[in-house]
Amino acid sequence: MAKRKPSGAVIKRMPRYYRLLNMMNEKGIESVSSSTLGDRLGLTASQVRQDFNCFGGYGQQGYGYNVKKLLAELRNILAIDREHTAIIVGAGNIGKAITRFEGLAKENIKILALFDVNQEVIGKTIADRPIYDVSELATYIKEHNVDIGIIAARKSVAQELADTMAEAGIRGIWNFAPLEISSDVPVENVHFVDSLITLTYKMETEDDNDED
Amino acid sequence: MAKRKPSGAVIKRMPRYYRLLNMMNEKGIESVSSSTLGDRLGLTASQVRQDFNCFGGYGQQGYGYNVKKLLAELRNILAIDREHTAIIVGAGNIGKAITRFEGLAKENIKILALFDVNQEVIGKTIADRPIYDVSELATYIKEHNVDIGIIAARKSVAQELADTMAEAGIRGIWNFAPLEISSDVPVENVHFVDSLITLTYKMETEDDNDED
Repeated sequence: MAKRKPSGAVIKRMPRYYRLLNMMNEKGIESVSSSTLGDRLGLTASQVRQDFNCFGGYGQQGYGYNVKKLLAELRNILAIDREHTAIIVGAGNIGKAITRFEGLAKENIKILALFDVNQEVIGKTIADRPIYDVSELATYIKEHNVDIGIIAARKSVAQELADTMAEAGIRGIWNFAPLEISSDVPVENVHFVDSLITLTYKMETEDDNDED
Repeated sequence: MAKRKPSGAVIKRMPRYYRLLNMMNEKGIESVSSSTLGDRLGLTASQVRQDFNCFGGYGQQGYGYNVKKLLAELRNILAIDREHTAIIVGAGNIGKAITRFEGLAKENIKILALFDVNQEVIGKTIADRPIYDVSELATYIKEHNVDIGIIAARKSVAQELADTMAEAGIRGIWNFAPLEISSDVPVENVHFVDSLITLTYKMETEDDNDED
């Protein structure tokens, strides 16, 4: 059961394993073989077994993996078995959609508040979360020990917001503005357009046998 | 200049090349070496050269790649040098955000209309696009030869919507509902949560040296 440190490639596959196992669990599937998982994700059975060795095993030759155990271990590794607090900068459409997205609570992400520059929305609420003036951002992060800063603001201010967040002690940044944020804290940039242009590519080549 | 058919892995890297080259072009960079591109994307120079051979070359040993030519070729391969029409089902926050997202027009995606079940929004417009009753979806797709169907509706109806779209002749589906859509036409599922849980993982391990 010795764990090895996962490589970048393993880390990228973890959310896909997590998604697939969640779906299987919802369907009441109790155990799954490495070859079934591999088939579904376009990987070899051996690659799946190697990946799962990185996070502690839970498979027995010939018996497959226990879905619930594997999910619990993945949730632990992905750190979504405990709560993370978050704030959103930008109370526009993307900010609203994120606030109302039920998938976040499922992963123990708790949105505390939103911030904006627009005086017309400051003081209002979205799904019971208050919208504050962005000038209060740094103070709020410090006072509430906020874990995650979500950027749903325009491109031109996104890097500056990230800098303010990091200085105020945020631990990670989830960026929806269409640019690459750089920071001393971990950043994940969401690139909608990547999947859109993958789609137009596939439409043109009619090559829809990709694994994801 | 013989082109080879790109593998699944190359296809996944194409949007990242495209994003990086766009940024370089915006900064006025005219040529770039395979090793610089590789460094930025966590790939070897040789891997970059092999990838670019798949889409026709444009590099000369010792001189690097012409950024504008490479971008034009990528836009051609990704099929975003010509217009694709699209409709959105779901005029809620995600639908609104997509409609107003300026990045789509840049890639020649033209949103024609939205569809919803909510009688309060049907007949209204979002950024000048009409919102129709979802019962008109199939007819509209046929009459307007719509290329792309964007699903921004709830999970429970997403697969049914995809089936309706495919039967009506849509050519590709861009799905924002949190499940895997299956269809005879190409589908790209947008999984927000994948990047969020990659972030929480990185925050926990403080391993922020990933290439993206």
